[in-house]
Amino acid sequence: MTQEGILVVLSGPSGTGKGTVCKELLRHCPSLHYSISATTRQPRLGEVNGVNYYFTPQDQFLEMVEQNNLLEWAEVYGNYYGTPRKYVEEQLLKGYDVVLEIDTQGALQVKERFNKGILVFLLPPSLTELEDRIWKRGTDTPDTIKRRLNAATAEFDQIRNYEYVVVNDDVNAAVEKIRAIILAEKCRVSRSQKEIEAICAIHNT
Amino acid sequence: MTQEGILVVLSGPSGTGKGTVCKELLRHCPSLHYSISATTRQPRLGEVNGVNYYFTPQDQFLEMVEQNNLLEWAEVYGNYYGTPRKYVEEQLLKGYDVVLEIDTQGALQVKERFNKGILVFLLPPSLTELEDRIWKRGTDTPDTIKRRLNAATAEFDQIRNYEYVVVNDDVNAAVEKIRAIILAEKCRVSRSQKEIEAICAIHNT
Repeated sequence: MTQEGILVVLSGPSGTGKGTVCKELLRHCPSLHYSISATTRQPRLGEVNGVNYYFTPQDQFLEMVEQNNLLEWAEVYGNYYGTPRKYVEEQLLKGYDVVLEIDTQGALQVKERFNKGILVFLLPPSLTELEDRIWKRGTDTPDTIKRRLNAATAEFDQIRNYEYVVVNDDVNAAVEKIRAIILAEKCRVSRSQKEIEAICAIHNT
Repeated sequence: MTQEGILVVLSGPSGTGKGTVCKELLRHCPSLHYSISATTRQPRLGEVNGVNYYFTPQDQFLEMVEQNNLLEWAEVYGNYYGTPRKYVEEQLLKGYDVVLEIDTQGALQVKERFNKGILVFLLPPSLTELEDRIWKRGTDTPDTIKRRLNAATAEFDQIRNYEYVVVNDDVNAAVEKIRAIILAEKCRVSRSQKEIEAICAIHNT
């Protein structure tokens, strides 16, 4: 009678703090599993294969696309990113929740194709703050930063396709909200049919 | 830019523990206000007018119905129960959340007429447990208890019209779930339009 796990799709513009929020979220939720994306981009300083991403050669990535082994995939800034389908499906069936930290293109694909993700959009407190954060990260060139900010504005238009929006003005508060979203979603009548039937059935025995 | 409050409609069969859960919920949520129902039934031992209910003569109650001053009303076991509209609307506009502890008839009326309540159905862990609890309460005659149990079965059929279901096998866990539902609902994109616009607007100034 295990309820299927919840698939949380966390996205938002680059620099919103998705990574930090996701890390804290995982620390607080032992039953929440992180789905590692595959990507063709080069590792940034400190990134580890199999931890941050599965760094994958382009031909191999395209083969996964071909064989429908990715839940979603997208090209962003000239690189491919995708979510291996098998891991996510297995965890959900076991009753574990899974979090995907992906961009809006990918999030909308999950919603369309998989029809079971809960889409959460992480917003910066302001666009000025977003710009500051990207500069402080120090891993991007000024040109890339400009591209990222333009992309952010375009991504805001996608919020209407999301179920939830969380403003990341405080990491702990943002994490608490996402935990609440997961817990609330587990209480949805549409997800609790087996439990409801089990309780109501006792009357007929 | 205050977001309108959330209206939580908590219902479920008599004896499920709505009263206890509601009391604990209010203790944990200072911004949650309790809407006191009006009723024509006689006070039970220990019940206080203006605290548990507004005990109201029948002619006065029917006048409130006539003047559309009730958000919902119903006849249950020969007595009238209803929710004064003004208090609820005022609190929500001020940004406070409001909880209604009402039966399923009333809950569905709120959904239909007011179109803004979040419907939460509180379930007992089992029907056997429900029967035990009603007996232990010791305030009902055997005939009334039988009627309540039959009514419970009928009420279960209404769960499909609810958004959320919470099993009250542990009061603290049930309270945590309802708190999560309120917090999650506040993060809904449909409720956060003003906040989203404010953040995205900064870019254009």
